[in-house]
Amino acid sequence: MDADAVAKAFVEHYYRTFDTNRPALVSLYQDGSMLTFEGQQFLGAAAIAGKLGSLPFAQCHHDINTVDCQPSGPQGGMLVFVSGSLRTGPDEHPLKFSQMFQLLPAGGNFYVQNDMFRLNYG
Amino acid sequence: MDADAVAKAFVEHYYRTFDTNRPALVSLYQDGSMLTFEGQQFLGAAAIAGKLGSLPFAQCHHDINTVDCQPSGPQGGMLVFVSGSLRTGPDEHPLKFSQMFQLLPAGGNFYVQNDMFRLNYG
Repeated sequence: MDADAVAKAFVEHYYRTFDTNRPALVSLYQDGSMLTFEGQQFLGAAAIAGKLGSLPFAQCHHDINTVDCQPSGPQGGMLVFVSGSLRTGPDEHPLKFSQMFQLLPAGGNFYVQNDMFRLNYG
Repeated sequence: MDADAVAKAFVEHYYRTFDTNRPALVSLYQDGSMLTFEGQQFLGAAAIAGKLGSLPFAQCHHDINTVDCQPSGPQGGMLVFVSGSLRTGPDEHPLKFSQMFQLLPAGGNFYVQNDMFRLNYG
């Protein structure tokens, strides 16, 4: 797979997991992973999964508009930049968001080293 | 300066330069720098400056809403994630955008290794 295909596959996997089995996201992060979520900072898979698990909605559905990627660094990392919208229930308005990830290779796969998320208010 | 202060100073400098002296942005990139602008890819300072210089508006004013940053990699790099709006003339509607940069250190300063830009359509 080329880098664009890897990035798209990661993005599909990430948001499908978020929307259907949020606790399983923990396996995508490692101890040194960082999340900045609406300006709040979290370090390490456990803290990140704790934050994502405590978001105040049970349902979530992400729709992805764009996925861009670029190679990053000598280790074979990848920067992935996403825009889309999410809906936290069938009667809720969609909220636009953007999110960026730095993926690093580990054991034939990638994990999320850096994750920054922002809602884009109208 | 801590990392947040460096990121904020970079962001202020970048968009002020974009809005007042766009050709000078070339000095912030190097030969290996990458720009993905609305999905189009450009490699190297000359190609990137060419793209930014050929955008179809003479005036531009950026307003920044959020700046997030995280450290990146063993070289002392930094990921900077920006959301804001821009206006290409006094009578134009503001357009929301998000943009991410990877800054790498060089000679006591930082340059832009990675740059990805997207408008966030309403």
